[in-house]
Amino acid sequence: MKETIKHYGSAEILTKLKNRNSLFICVIASTRTAKIPGITGAGATAELTDYTPAADVELIVHGEPQCLLEIPQTVIGGESAPTPAVITKAALELSDIPFLVADAGAAVKPNLPYIKINDEPGGDIKHGKAVLNPEEIFNKGKILGENLSKITDYLIIGESTPAGTTTALGVLTAMGYDAGHKVSGSMPENPHELKERVVREGLKAAGFKPGDLVTDPFKAVEAVGDPMIPAVAGIAAGSRVPVILAGGTQMTAVCAVIKEAAPEFDFDELAIATTIFVAEDETSDINYISTQISDTTIFAVDPCFEKSEITGLKNYLNGSVKEGVGAGGAMMAALLKGVSIDDLRKRTEDLCREIF
Amino acid sequence: MKETIKHYGSAEILTKLKNRNSLFICVIASTRTAKIPGITGAGATAELTDYTPAADVELIVHGEPQCLLEIPQTVIGGESAPTPAVITKAALELSDIPFLVADAGAAVKPNLPYIKINDEPGGDIKHGKAVLNPEEIFNKGKILGENLSKITDYLIIGESTPAGTTTALGVLTAMGYDAGHKVSGSMPENPHELKERVVREGLKAAGFKPGDLVTDPFKAVEAVGDPMIPAVAGIAAGSRVPVILAGGTQMTAVCAVIKEAAPEFDFDELAIATTIFVAEDETSDINYISTQISDTTIFAVDPCFEKSEITGLKNYLNGSVKEGVGAGGAMMAALLKGVSIDDLRKRTEDLCREIF
Repeated sequence: MKETIKHYGSAEILTKLKNRNSLFICVIASTRTAKIPGITGAGATAELTDYTPAADVELIVHGEPQCLLEIPQTVIGGESAPTPAVITKAALELSDIPFLVADAGAAVKPNLPYIKINDEPGGDIKHGKAVLNPEEIFNKGKILGENLSKITDYLIIGESTPAGTTTALGVLTAMGYDAGHKVSGSMPENPHELKERVVREGLKAAGFKPGDLVTDPFKAVEAVGDPMIPAVAGIAAGSRVPVILAGGTQMTAVCAVIKEAAPEFDFDELAIATTIFVAEDETSDINYISTQISDTTIFAVDPCFEKSEITGLKNYLNGSVKEGVGAGGAMMAALLKGVSIDDLRKRTEDLCREIF
Repeated sequence: MKETIKHYGSAEILTKLKNRNSLFICVIASTRTAKIPGITGAGATAELTDYTPAADVELIVHGEPQCLLEIPQTVIGGESAPTPAVITKAALELSDIPFLVADAGAAVKPNLPYIKINDEPGGDIKHGKAVLNPEEIFNKGKILGENLSKITDYLIIGESTPAGTTTALGVLTAMGYDAGHKVSGSMPENPHELKERVVREGLKAAGFKPGDLVTDPFKAVEAVGDPMIPAVAGIAAGSRVPVILAGGTQMTAVCAVIKEAAPEFDFDELAIATTIFVAEDETSDINYISTQISDTTIFAVDPCFEKSEITGLKNYLNGSVKEGVGAGGAMMAALLKGVSIDDLRKRTEDLCREIF
């Protein structure tokens, strides 16, 4: 297992999680920021990004998306890679970990039972009015996290939020962290200039400069964030058991919000788990961002897709997709339950053959 | 404990539940049937019944209703009795049992995170068009039940559905059970004639006679039921762990639907838990209905409100309210965790003093 889970920071929390029961909750949200041309690869076209979160969780529950005919894929220059939801599905099935969905504001609602935290999608952060009610979303997340943590040994929180690295950059920048050129992205060419321009414009429109909102996470989210961030931060803050934030650089923005909105929060009880594709991404630096916020350990799972015969999965090695729908955290939880990485990859391949 | 939990049928299932972890889920729904004058006491006026389910679960989570200024009470001839939500709240707090809310179609949505199974309230059954999509609701419930049952030793499912005994009578009658004059009600004077007339009208409007839908539970719900019934039936049918249906005669309609919609269901893994006020009600007969359907054990908890100094709680002894929001099942689960009935009553009294 050691070879397949790398860690940056202390691996001590793993002893609390090994062979314990967990619960995976995927928080979905949309923002109009995702419609900015060239900003995200999470959806074959800008219009389809509205469907991606719902289609992702439908794929996990029903084995196929029901809200649209096509399966979410990242298509870059003719090359396509399947949504990381297939990895998450494979991991949760092999480890029999329960899967819940929470809506923080998805534009298209999934056809399955889900927990409603917030209804409205986020705006385009360019206009400096991104989320209407971040504190209310945080507080609802907190109630949910407290309740869910009564019934499991640890919580794994994933997300599906197209353009989420741009809104994460927004929150981090507003709160004074140095995240420029450091957030990840769903495409091999990470459009850092575009992301930073959008954030700058948004902050300006809201009347703030970078770093103006060091102690006001909700204003930061309100101006240039997305509704997933306060929802996940709230669930984590409400939890009484350890929390794995299953995602890439977006989860550092969640940590930044938790740190200010829940000052009593114990960061020893939290870790970020992602994929090797994020951790070793040369176009971003999750560790650089994270160490500015807290001592959070970052775990990175390597599914060894170089061994795969499925072209779409091999495209992950070229920088397509990288992470999403909590794929890295779901893999880690499965490994902690004794599932082997080879079985995980094989089940992912089988699902790709069945679904695509 | 024996004196406070009576049972009708085998008490064997208790050995599987004692000191185990449980999860309480409250399914809320509204129907326009509740607006028929004189049919329900669940709300101070017919208009307020729309608010009752949301206010009930808000009271449990927030300690006060947020969707309306008044607390749900049953007011009959100047006498009032507090919503059974206070009993449920006391029981869940003392036993630290997690509380989740699922919306099966509440007219007013609660201000808290809830699981969305269905959005639309039910119609007035008089017109024979009560629920649009009962099978879809059942199937979503099933997905939820399967997932929730992975994280707990047993599930307790309560409900808040004004006029729910009338819609239960509708489903039972359509499916050929003899339930006339046998369903419970929230008022001392049980308006059986009115309930039966409404059901007869509804069946006629839908083109059916009593007993026409013996093997078609979804058609029965569609014509003369409510959206809570297929939601709870689905959650129970999806569960892999024992299920306690926390409610009165409404839960017999749920059993009838499960029996036909999930023929493989093992009724040894299910019981109904209610209050002594339902079990010993002279205006209804839960056992008479239940034994027609299955060998389901009915447990009845006596909170000994005759020992209380709170007038509102004493009014339960006169036949006001009787049950709701899973009060009987929540008390049973607390007793099974070692909470004493005296502590339960005292905590209920304290909550009444705090809230009302």
